[in-house]
Amino acid sequence: MSLNINSKIASCGGKLLKCTHDSVATKTAMNVNVYVPKQFYTAAKTSQKIPTLYFLSGLTCTPDNASEKAFWQLQADIYGFAVVFPDTSPRGDNVPGDPENSWDFGKGAGFYVNATTGKYKENYNMYDYVHSELPQLLQKNKDIFEDKIDFLENVSIAGHSMGGFGALSGFLKNLNKYKSCSAFAPIVNPSVVPWGTKAFGGYLGETSKSKWDEYDPCTLLKNTENPDNKYKIMIHVGTADPFLEKQLKPQNIVAAAKGTTWENAIDLNIVDGFDHSYYFISSFVPAHAEFHAKHLGLI
Amino acid sequence: MSLNINSKIASCGGKLLKCTHDSVATKTAMNVNVYVPKQFYTAAKTSQKIPTLYFLSGLTCTPDNASEKAFWQLQADIYGFAVVFPDTSPRGDNVPGDPENSWDFGKGAGFYVNATTGKYKENYNMYDYVHSELPQLLQKNKDIFEDKIDFLENVSIAGHSMGGFGALSGFLKNLNKYKSCSAFAPIVNPSVVPWGTKAFGGYLGETSKSKWDEYDPCTLLKNTENPDNKYKIMIHVGTADPFLEKQLKPQNIVAAAKGTTWENAIDLNIVDGFDHSYYFISSFVPAHAEFHAKHLGLI
Repeated sequence: MSLNINSKIASCGGKLLKCTHDSVATKTAMNVNVYVPKQFYTAAKTSQKIPTLYFLSGLTCTPDNASEKAFWQLQADIYGFAVVFPDTSPRGDNVPGDPENSWDFGKGAGFYVNATTGKYKENYNMYDYVHSELPQLLQKNKDIFEDKIDFLENVSIAGHSMGGFGALSGFLKNLNKYKSCSAFAPIVNPSVVPWGTKAFGGYLGETSKSKWDEYDPCTLLKNTENPDNKYKIMIHVGTADPFLEKQLKPQNIVAAAKGTTWENAIDLNIVDGFDHSYYFISSFVPAHAEFHAKHLGLI
Repeated sequence: MSLNINSKIASCGGKLLKCTHDSVATKTAMNVNVYVPKQFYTAAKTSQKIPTLYFLSGLTCTPDNASEKAFWQLQADIYGFAVVFPDTSPRGDNVPGDPENSWDFGKGAGFYVNATTGKYKENYNMYDYVHSELPQLLQKNKDIFEDKIDFLENVSIAGHSMGGFGALSGFLKNLNKYKSCSAFAPIVNPSVVPWGTKAFGGYLGETSKSKWDEYDPCTLLKNTENPDNKYKIMIHVGTADPFLEKQLKPQNIVAAAKGTTWENAIDLNIVDGFDHSYYFISSFVPAHAEFHAKHLGLI
């Protein structure tokens, strides 16, 4: 499939490419933004390709929210990595949304799983889309990226809220794929919180708890070995986050990691006074960028 | 008048205060955001107060656009200055808007002048509001700012588009007030471009060209001496800015400065490929922050 560039926006020292492409996984057109850092334009082509960070956004977001407000670009230019901002769900009139028209299920709320239920399984396959189809598609578009960016192998993943869940879940299910994982205010234990049970119930089935387990980071941690204790997971959550107690429950992932090979791997930072917004995300993007840059071999 | 804090949002190392207050100049409630940098919270109180940068936004903006997307906060923390984000006009059902309901006049488009025409002179006094009432009000609120921030004397001004005009115009009319001025894609010569003639015609009167001259930076430059050539004005404009030729005309300010004491003062940077958006602004905020920090005695 080909990638259509709708606009190419100068940002910091690089370019933000706003793209659309047809997706096999979601059977819709998908929007995705790609920040190509300044090193792409200034560095000579070498055997060392520019690595990629995938950033998964939270409920209601399009690829534009984080592109405009998280401010990864300045950090990407400092270290020299590309940033991919996928959409949060399939879109379009033919895609079923939430029957209740709420904002925490359906469009803008794909939850980065492969749906198995009747109404949603046709389009809501964001897991396959994000972790497989999209990286392969980007890698294949050598006319655009000149084979100078590594979208497949030297890659890391981060996300916010629902996207923080998506990053944790996708990382733990693909330890051979991602070099590092971090999350801002993630839903760490979706099986036990309202946002998660609504999403898992709707996309995977109310009674299919074994399928829920396949995506829940707190279960995955127990069933996945941290090889040679090599991985750390960086998490920041603010004390003024209105979703902290009811939806995020960051202590659950620390508890789940206890007695496993992940016990010392969870770098959970509860930060005083921060909320759930992009003001919070952008404040800790520099720390997360440095964390990923280390794991991507950039520093 | 008192300043009501609607919310206090942790951002980077400081806090963004979203405030509302009654205004004498506009006879309405006004919204304003103030970023209080980390130095306010970490530094001991000294005789050296934290200086302030006023940032005037462009057409259609509220105080939130630049607070979310320009990303001054990180820079403010580096150098130690506060940032004030005023609104772009009075608001409310009782305030007259544009009879044509367009976005380039009326609400969200106050143009930082004092209106003299019948319908608008009651409320549209953004010049007095921004350069006089607001700084005095902020300075008086010692319960909030603990007398640690200097909102009145060690201050600089910057702006974007309409706000770039507002910054240039306000600076040239108040050389004793501001230490430095910079602008992103400013309307430098409003008297000769569509946005400017519509605003000046509506707020100052179609035939009152002498009043237009009182605000047009290209005229003010000729009538205002740059004492000992001490001031520089930093301007960035992108080559992909869709308003470059028709509305911004940056070459007009260079031409106007020729043969005046401002001839060597205009640091005009035409930057390749940048548009008119916050992607452009945020890319050059670090350079403008450093420029102002020097003039504010911070480096």
